[in-house]
Amino acid sequence: MSATRSTAASRSSQTITDVRVTPVAFADPPLLNTVGVHQPYALRAIVQVHTERGLAGVGETYADTAHLIRLEAAARELIGLDAFALNQVRAVIDERVSQLTVTGGDGVAGMITTASTTDRVFSPFEVACLDIQGKAIGRPVSDLLGGAVRDSVPFSAYLFYKWAAHPGAVEDDWGEALDPAGLVRQARRMLDEYGFTAIKLKGGVFHPDEEIAAIKALRAEFPDVPLRLDPNAAWTVDTSLRVAAELEGVVEYLEDPTPGLDGMAEVATEAKMPLATNMCVVAFGHLKPAVVKDSVSVVLSDHHYWGGLQRSRLLGGICETFGLGLSMHSNSHLGISLAAMVHLAAATPNLTYACDTHWPWKTEDVVKPGALRFEGGAVPVPTGPGLGVEIDDDALAELHKQYLDCGIRDRDDTGYMKSVDPTFENTAPRW
Amino acid sequence: MSATRSTAASRSSQTITDVRVTPVAFADPPLLNTVGVHQPYALRAIVQVHTERGLAGVGETYADTAHLIRLEAAARELIGLDAFALNQVRAVIDERVSQLTVTGGDGVAGMITTASTTDRVFSPFEVACLDIQGKAIGRPVSDLLGGAVRDSVPFSAYLFYKWAAHPGAVEDDWGEALDPAGLVRQARRMLDEYGFTAIKLKGGVFHPDEEIAAIKALRAEFPDVPLRLDPNAAWTVDTSLRVAAELEGVVEYLEDPTPGLDGMAEVATEAKMPLATNMCVVAFGHLKPAVVKDSVSVVLSDHHYWGGLQRSRLLGGICETFGLGLSMHSNSHLGISLAAMVHLAAATPNLTYACDTHWPWKTEDVVKPGALRFEGGAVPVPTGPGLGVEIDDDALAELHKQYLDCGIRDRDDTGYMKSVDPTFENTAPRW
Ligand SMILES: [Mg+2]
Ligand SMILES: [Mg+2]
Repeated sequence: MSATRSTAASRSSQTITDVRVTPVAFADPPLLNTVGVHQPYALRAIVQVHTERGLAGVGETYADTAHLIRLEAAARELIGLDAFALNQVRAVIDERVSQLTVTGGDGVAGMITTASTTDRVFSPFEVACLDIQGKAIGRPVSDLLGGAVRDSVPFSAYLFYKWAAHPGAVEDDWGEALDPAGLVRQARRMLDEYGFTAIKLKGGVFHPDEEIAAIKALRAEFPDVPLRLDPNAAWTVDTSLRVAAELEGVVEYLEDPTPGLDGMAEVATEAKMPLATNMCVVAFGHLKPAVVKDSVSVVLSDHHYWGGLQRSRLLGGICETFGLGLSMHSNSHLGISLAAMVHLAAATPNLTYACDTHWPWKTEDVVKPGALRFEGGAVPVPTGPGLGVEIDDDALAELHKQYLDCGIRDRDDTGYMKSVDPTFENTAPRW
Repeated sequence: MSATRSTAASRSSQTITDVRVTPVAFADPPLLNTVGVHQPYALRAIVQVHTERGLAGVGETYADTAHLIRLEAAARELIGLDAFALNQVRAVIDERVSQLTVTGGDGVAGMITTASTTDRVFSPFEVACLDIQGKAIGRPVSDLLGGAVRDSVPFSAYLFYKWAAHPGAVEDDWGEALDPAGLVRQARRMLDEYGFTAIKLKGGVFHPDEEIAAIKALRAEFPDVPLRLDPNAAWTVDTSLRVAAELEGVVEYLEDPTPGLDGMAEVATEAKMPLATNMCVVAFGHLKPAVVKDSVSVVLSDHHYWGGLQRSRLLGGICETFGLGLSMHSNSHLGISLAAMVHLAAATPNLTYACDTHWPWKTEDVVKPGALRFEGGAVPVPTGPGLGVEIDDDALAELHKQYLDCGIRDRDDTGYMKSVDPTFENTAPRW
């Protein structure tokens, strides 16, 4: 037995020898949401894991200050571990993270604060290890998740109310969208350029009546495209029910109309459309109460806070088992995460909704171009080894310099909005 | 992208070229349970999957007539598929199995009839494909499940009431065990020889008072060893509550005292010890009602009917998520399944109970000896590529001949018991 052990180890172990965490900043348009507005730069941390056999894997996550401290602490613990020993990697990170006393750093502007810290920190390292595993065995990451069941992964167009430009900057080429006509224009361009076959509107920005009008305008313009509205819990239960009645038969699901499992459960009893969430069910501990209360019928996965791709697969299995629909959430992200999302979605049979992505809003990246592209609103699943994306060292250095220079260290949509409109208050529910 | 695709395919695809299903019979002692008694031979089907690159993987499952028909039908569908494409393998089997009109073939003597047919048929092929994957990449199967978190997997001693011999045969060397003294003797030998650190008694055979006395005798003889009692739903709710009161503080869990999710839920409200099951929660569809009704607090996994190792891992994640304990069930099995159980258990952090095994009762096998051994009641996790067990072609041929000669084609503990005792009736609950 000991002979077998050493043979196996010498043949195929992928001992981690180096882990780098690099914060980057990339330009982000002034996209509005209920807590404020996107800052001029979005932050991400790029994780690079190297093994003694010369393989490298990449992952991507948030880059808020507290999160970076946790990432750095976790990174040091991984040296000497095997990139295949994911249970062990997670256990080590769990222990290290629990020793830290930093707070905050959720990376999503306060909209999701109850996700598991361990799962959030583990995620980019798990993705990087799967990238290494795939490269080591010459298979795409989707094969490590049960194998792709689709050749390409459909995404939805992600519409935002937006300003024409960040204050003091020149107007970006998407221009302003602050009313139904502006959103229809935005949608038309996005569908023309990317071929999206579903549309999501980030709501919670204006009075619900204006957002109902926007959805109805989109429905009139795109009669056959599934529509979604996500006000990020900006409404009371009563307001949610009123909107739900207005949009019955118009949206494929209503996302987080109101805060909390109890509020959502109350809305769910009367609303005719499925209720979806990436706010009240964001950790494994939320699933049992959500099931018992019947709060939601669709859960949005997001490997960044659900603990990586394998645990997102577990979430998918749980949704299937408990009769919940499955969709996919997106925060502003770069190409590494898009690749990870595509592999995960491809290997998840019950992920039947088009996934969210911030892709069209993103103009800079750290990966070499060409690996990922949209065809008919869907991204073909990379079939080469690992994630199928490669870091562009110059681009990484440039976006890291941008991080150093831009001065933003924590995502703060509310603070940025207040700097423009001092009367703004982040109140929930707002209407 | 197409260049990448073909490179990946040529480098590492494991296209299935041949699948063999071989029924075998191995000697089984006259072990008693509530539906009857084990026949002189237990049946298993050995699945061997070959790829065009010359790799072979093995799996093991039931061999009842209807199950064999399904296995053969499924086997033919797998030719040309990739051993890494497990989602696809399962989908193909699911479709094929749904076309068949055969019924029965559950392989567990009628004690579990509501498991998923697809999961039961998929299981041995999935295990064989994971064996191939492990060999292809030079890693143990545990690494395909997240990595081992323990070096060896503890099992429990599995005590049975038993006759001294099958009718007409010479007494086997374990002898008779029909009362507390006989069970204590059996346990003593089993612990001495294997080092088990937990004990399970298969009950439901005699009046509950006798089985309570047996457990108390075991407790007196082995004051520190966790004990379990499993009457296979032989008792009413009232009887279950009476036994539970008698055994409070004596057993670590009470397994399937009474039939059904509702009955179990009723027992659970008053019984002080955890209730475990491998009868009322045996498929993913049972989990939501079990959680909502609070029927059980421990689920016994069994990759033979939970759809293989990856889906058993999903079950483990569901148990962790919904606050359920996790243990592992065993049917009579050979070395292939023991290896699979060990890899799964090793990679499942929340599998904290000692697993069931029928190992001590089994004297024949189809795998070459030496790969698996008990040390202190635990099996060291194989660390070589794949499952770590190898088929002994001569032994396989011999046990297949034994299958052909023995005349048993469907497990029938009840029919066999009736042939010995014509007054026997399979009634549930019996007391
Ligand atoms: Mg949302
Ligand atoms: Mg049982």
